[in-house]
Amino acid sequence: MWTLSDTTFTARSQAHQETIYTIGNGYLCTRGAMEEGYPDDRRATFIHGVFDAAPIVVTELANAPDWLPVAIFLEGERFSMATGTVESFTRALDLRTGVLTRAVRWLSPGGRIATITFERFASLADEHLLCLSCRVTPEFDGSIEIQASLNGNTDNEGLAHWRWQAQGESNGAIYLSNRTRQSGADVALAMRTQVEGTGQCVEQAFWNVQNAPTKMLKFAAKAGETVAVNKFVSVFTSRDTAAVVERALQHADTAITWADALDANATAWAGEWERNDIIIEGDEEAQIAMRFNLYQMLIAAPRHDDRVNIGAKTLSGFGYRGHSFWDTEIFMLPLFIYTAPHIARNLLNYRYQRLPAARHKAAANGYEGAQFPWESADSGEEVTPTWVTHFADRTKMVRIWTGDIEIHISADIAYATCLYHRITGDDAWFIAKGAEIVLDTAKFWGARAEWNAAKDRYDINDVIGPDENHEHVNNNAYTNAMAQWNLRMAFTVLDWLKAHAPDVAAQITIALDLNEARLAHWREVIAKVLIHQEASGLIEQFEGFYKLRPVLMADLEPRSRSAQEIFGIEGANHVQAIKQPDVLMMQYLLRDNYSAETVRVNYDYYNPRTDLAYGSSLGPSIQAVMACEVGDSEGAYEHFIRAARADLRDVRGNAGDGIHAASAAGTWHSVVFGFAGLRVAPDGSGWTIRPRLPAHWKRLAFSFFLKGERQQVDITAQTFGTA
Amino acid sequence: MWTLSDTTFTARSQAHQETIYTIGNGYLCTRGAMEEGYPDDRRATFIHGVFDAAPIVVTELANAPDWLPVAIFLEGERFSMATGTVESFTRALDLRTGVLTRAVRWLSPGGRIATITFERFASLADEHLLCLSCRVTPEFDGSIEIQASLNGNTDNEGLAHWRWQAQGESNGAIYLSNRTRQSGADVALAMRTQVEGTGQCVEQAFWNVQNAPTKMLKFAAKAGETVAVNKFVSVFTSRDTAAVVERALQHADTAITWADALDANATAWAGEWERNDIIIEGDEEAQIAMRFNLYQMLIAAPRHDDRVNIGAKTLSGFGYRGHSFWDTEIFMLPLFIYTAPHIARNLLNYRYQRLPAARHKAAANGYEGAQFPWESADSGEEVTPTWVTHFADRTKMVRIWTGDIEIHISADIAYATCLYHRITGDDAWFIAKGAEIVLDTAKFWGARAEWNAAKDRYDINDVIGPDENHEHVNNNAYTNAMAQWNLRMAFTVLDWLKAHAPDVAAQITIALDLNEARLAHWREVIAKVLIHQEASGLIEQFEGFYKLRPVLMADLEPRSRSAQEIFGIEGANHVQAIKQPDVLMMQYLLRDNYSAETVRVNYDYYNPRTDLAYGSSLGPSIQAVMACEVGDSEGAYEHFIRAARADLRDVRGNAGDGIHAASAAGTWHSVVFGFAGLRVAPDGSGWTIRPRLPAHWKRLAFSFFLKGERQQVDITAQTFGTA
Repeated sequence: MWTLSDTTFTARSQAHQETIYTIGNGYLCTRGAMEEGYPDDRRATFIHGVFDAAPIVVTELANAPDWLPVAIFLEGERFSMATGTVESFTRALDLRTGVLTRAVRWLSPGGRIATITFERFASLADEHLLCLSCRVTPEFDGSIEIQASLNGNTDNEGLAHWRWQAQGESNGAIYLSNRTRQSGADVALAMRTQVEGTGQCVEQAFWNVQNAPTKMLKFAAKAGETVAVNKFVSVFTSRDTAAVVERALQHADTAITWADALDANATAWAGEWERNDIIIEGDEEAQIAMRFNLYQMLIAAPRHDDRVNIGAKTLSGFGYRGHSFWDTEIFMLPLFIYTAPHIARNLLNYRYQRLPAARHKAAANGYEGAQFPWESADSGEEVTPTWVTHFADRTKMVRIWTGDIEIHISADIAYATCLYHRITGDDAWFIAKGAEIVLDTAKFWGARAEWNAAKDRYDINDVIGPDENHEHVNNNAYTNAMAQWNLRMAFTVLDWLKAHAPDVAAQITIALDLNEARLAHWREVIAKVLIHQEASGLIEQFEGFYKLRPVLMADLEPRSRSAQEIFGIEGANHVQAIKQPDVLMMQYLLRDNYSAETVRVNYDYYNPRTDLAYGSSLGPSIQAVMACEVGDSEGAYEHFIRAARADLRDVRGNAGDGIHAASAAGTWHSVVFGFAGLRVAPDGSGWTIRPRLPAHWKRLAFSFFLKGERQQVDITAQTFGTA
Repeated sequence: MWTLSDTTFTARSQAHQETIYTIGNGYLCTRGAMEEGYPDDRRATFIHGVFDAAPIVVTELANAPDWLPVAIFLEGERFSMATGTVESFTRALDLRTGVLTRAVRWLSPGGRIATITFERFASLADEHLLCLSCRVTPEFDGSIEIQASLNGNTDNEGLAHWRWQAQGESNGAIYLSNRTRQSGADVALAMRTQVEGTGQCVEQAFWNVQNAPTKMLKFAAKAGETVAVNKFVSVFTSRDTAAVVERALQHADTAITWADALDANATAWAGEWERNDIIIEGDEEAQIAMRFNLYQMLIAAPRHDDRVNIGAKTLSGFGYRGHSFWDTEIFMLPLFIYTAPHIARNLLNYRYQRLPAARHKAAANGYEGAQFPWESADSGEEVTPTWVTHFADRTKMVRIWTGDIEIHISADIAYATCLYHRITGDDAWFIAKGAEIVLDTAKFWGARAEWNAAKDRYDINDVIGPDENHEHVNNNAYTNAMAQWNLRMAFTVLDWLKAHAPDVAAQITIALDLNEARLAHWREVIAKVLIHQEASGLIEQFEGFYKLRPVLMADLEPRSRSAQEIFGIEGANHVQAIKQPDVLMMQYLLRDNYSAETVRVNYDYYNPRTDLAYGSSLGPSIQAVMACEVGDSEGAYEHFIRAARADLRDVRGNAGDGIHAASAAGTWHSVVFGFAGLRVAPDGSGWTIRPRLPAHWKRLAFSFFLKGERQQVDITAQTFGTA
């Protein structure tokens, strides 16, 4: 249950397969495109933090110079799965080690047969090391030529980001250096090839072709003998060092064998799985999907860099351009907080460093405090596109409002900050950095809430909640509740600081001007911010939601489009069709504030109104948890498996753009907080589980860390049956 | 007076120099970038008609695979003018033959010296043939390596348009084939190299690197001996043939020597200059500038293809993306009509073929007839960008209105159609194609004019005239007068057809539904369309122009910005600062309708209000003609020389984006209709000149064709003195 594999290749699903066969090591990821190329492939390597300016989307991760290219010629015939006949094909990704292999028995147009295998991985033991091996076993006697290249001619779906800088050969290694056109980031690759196998290498040459330096190796091969070339590529960027070429070449000078590189990588991966694995017995699909989703998180997670974040599509595709959203803090961070706190801290440091940009955004909007951007990339400025061309009429522009008014992200970041502290007990970090995030976002909310004298309350008007089907709404329950939580938490944090780090408390009180008047104002906002709850416990998603035209998802069946597509962007604003359920998400995050009965009332109301099949990919995994909470076991599994399949089965038809990171991380929530029912005490002093496994599951086991101590959970059907 | 040259190179003016040193043959043009590359160069080859989709600008000429690359290594040191020391440098473009040469004596960082010369041209004798020679004379004994490549990794200022298709070696020729990503246009290049000179070639190899196939030639050179490699490249696109690779290879198989290729090209060019040259004595700057401008027109003019037009920046740069405007019909076509009617006919056929698209545009706007697009590319649909991001604030979009309401182009095309007929006497073409253009554009004007019952007149409201400083104006004099002319000409054409081709007249009357009611309506519009003229003869540029805040250009001095920059896009609408003078342009085109006195009154009023220094590059050349008309000889030369220098001196700072084609062609108008004062009788039966040469000119001579007969004009200062 550790291997993802295919035995057929179809060009039609090429982009999807490239996404799911992505390899990586937290420094970079490389999509599963084929070494030799295939028409219309979307080959890409994304390196954390290497952004470049782009029209409309402001900035994007620049598709790095390509380290993959290997061209193979059998007696002059170039190998390609698009020509000749593919006699057999296997592709397999070993999730346990992150090694991608492909074996093809190929009949050339000229009638020559060879079995060609590729193996590749980005070393988790050495994040600057990329390894690729190519083996060719011909069924004929004749020449085999292998050309191993570095290729700087890459683009992001047509946008070229690189300018060539330098290339050459040094001490047997071939190097290439490029610079992004706008941001001026340098990347250098250095390549060393090794010949293995039994085939006789009769010629080697360096082809010093501009921006595609190539090592050519020619073999006099015999039928049945294997020609093998290993390609080791080292990579450095100007984010690592000023001397990118020198460092890449030095690194390439380190002698390494294929077996040693493979071993070191496997050992490093073993450590990751030791912390992160989730064992599911009785449901093979769930088991492999769970590991696949965790794998995708692990290859995208920065281990040695706290200046980057994980994009909504990880490093696995062009979608969302490498920008980070609340997806990180609400979906991905809990996974890391519980299983890999060092990664969680890196991701939170990224936000901490960008507090100045968040303050700038708040100030530009006329507010105090820190307002984090809806989409964040390198600088921490808002990088949400503001206008896009209407898909059907290019004389019309569509305004994207999320960057302006989807403001809940500031509370979401504060939430993750507090969660990190609660679960890890990392007081030093919280004193040095975390507290400031919570207090400065609170300051923003204090300024953002609007006094409504007529109704003696505070409103937060003109926002977009997580449910993006409804724009420009007033008093969105999720936003208001999270703002209220953030302000409350500010008092908790201040008290805690006074007790644990009085100097810092005093200093931050002055620095952020947390005077008594301000704190009194915060208390007012906490007390009077509108969250409209019926006597029944039902909470209105936003002011006026009940007055919208009622629509149940069942009414729309059969359908194959989202509710927003059915009603139109404008039309969807006027009906009760929800992209993802704000109220349930709020209850999920602030679970201790709501009774079981209140949760049930809201679940019963919002679940049938939520477009879980075609709405946001963020919806199903959390819905699974809430379904567990209310005892809807059928719904729980349906929501979970929908999230689990999102990328593996390309449920939404856009997995070619990259992994749905929040959905992938969300399955961890479904399993841990839903099926296992884990709850940690508010003060982090202990935990409980409340298992409610799907009926066919025989075992669920995982571990997590609480205040540095490893905790084991192992639930078997017997335990469950007797719970 | 035939050579443009430089003896210094500065990186800062690299893009400008690339533009002016563009070579071409009417099939394609290649900017004057250096064979070996230089940091931040804007190297480009544009092939007529090879467009591909692009964001915002809809479609653009795709920068073709690069045929230039030649990398030179002296004992392993790569030649680049960006490294080592340039001991001497000469670059020269022979306008008489279109051959660009460059000679560099270079001292390498390692202390080696060599003189390297390049020569290149796109053969005018064979439009599929590109020729490049490279000669290296070392001052040391040692190895010289020359790598000649084809490079498919090109982009349009960052936008990649090509996908690799195929490459290889066949019978000694190296080929590369690529396809545009959206439009699916194929281009194939085939390259053959020849070794000349006295240096000994010790090794040749084909480096089959993906998308950059390369011929490597290594020489054991001796001091003082010259190593020489000629590179012949053939090029075909899917606009020429379905079998692009085969045709390119066949073509490359034709044996040719450098001397023969050079000779054939020179002979072809001699024929062009025989027809087109303008001799100016007594003013070297004017002479070279005039030839330079004619050269730029000649290399962009399609000789064997009537499915393409010339863009506003010719084929010499990325500006305006290869789109064609009224610049073709009003500025460029007269030059070709008078000197190269076969080229003029090709350009008009392009418009004729796009009548269906023009009818579609009219219908989409609710009108009958043919409305040509303001910007036209391949399909003839409107390709003006509709929205662009505000340069200073990306949350704001700026609406570009010219594609919607700068409608005078339909009359401009009809005007050029009639001019072609009048000057060439090409009745057959006019019967088959031209008449339909005039009648269907008239039909558009008949529908477009709006009845104003209150004022008993026809209005043409909400337009932009040639003066784009003023948008959404009513009753623009230029537009209304040209519409009136177009409608009047429809009657002339109908009468002429009835007399000369009664069958066609009957047929077109039915096809276009030219019934009596419609014709009666046209007569009404002609009689009642508003052109507001004072008793003095002064014509108001548009309704309400007199009420705008008066601004004379003299009031703004000193300045270094356009009036529109000074007042802002919105602000410029409210002042009398004119980008280019609509009324004078109208009088220029419809000269026979206005008395000398009326011309003078309008010149005196509009000239001081027109931003000739920083406004439209289309203004000065025609202003020079009108200055001649009113006897403002100082102004005439000032306007002429401003137009003549536009690109040579990079007067507007944007020549790096490509040649200002209308300005270049406009200088021909300045000289022929201004300084020589040529006027052809309305029926084309004869011509007169009225010389008014600048005081320092000693001679002005040129020729043109009238109804197929060559006419010579030769004015010397003596003639002028006695005129």
